[in-house]
Amino acid sequence: MKFGMQAILTAVPNEGNALAKIMLEAASIVAPVKGCERYIVQQSLTDDTKILITEVWASQEDHQASLSNEQVQALIARAKPIIATMEYHPAQFLGGYGC
Amino acid sequence: MKFGMQAILTAVPNEGNALAKIMLEAASIVAPVKGCERYIVQQSLTDDTKILITEVWASQEDHQASLSNEQVQALIARAKPIIATMEYHPAQFLGGYGC
Repeated sequence: MKFGMQAILTAVPNEGNALAKIMLEAASIVAPVKGCERYIVQQSLTDDTKILITEVWASQEDHQASLSNEQVQALIARAKPIIATMEYHPAQFLGGYGC
Repeated sequence: MKFGMQAILTAVPNEGNALAKIMLEAASIVAPVKGCERYIVQQSLTDDTKILITEVWASQEDHQASLSNEQVQALIARAKPIIATMEYHPAQFLGGYGC
């Protein structure tokens, strides 16, 4: 079963763009990590503090293992202070187009 | 500016799998539509009535035009009766990996 998720990270006021930059950096860090297949970063058009993340992984184990990657942990530590709330939906990837 | 979105469609009770099927069909319908770049269908692991959709389009205009596509309209009509709620976040696609 392919693992995936959607998350909505809400930045603290005025830090939406800064958080978006960090999450784009996250995409480049996880790109070579085993099992990472998609890491999509988007910014809400109705509230620019909301950064929308969609991920697809070959397995939940691969995703879990990525969280102990030192670069990933360093990035999470940098992002945390400017994240006000996080909505997180772990999911089963079913399919679609261009993915 | 590339247009994108995340949506969470919550099905009426016991219709999560049926809604997932319809949304996978939606992916095949929009695949050849001008400007459609990604249409990802996932099902929440914590609530299987929640179907998570991530879309990326070349432009908001292309996405808007797709909504008047007859096949898309017919599919929306089929899905509506089994959708209880929809959370919709129109977004600017910023980038990422594998996308």
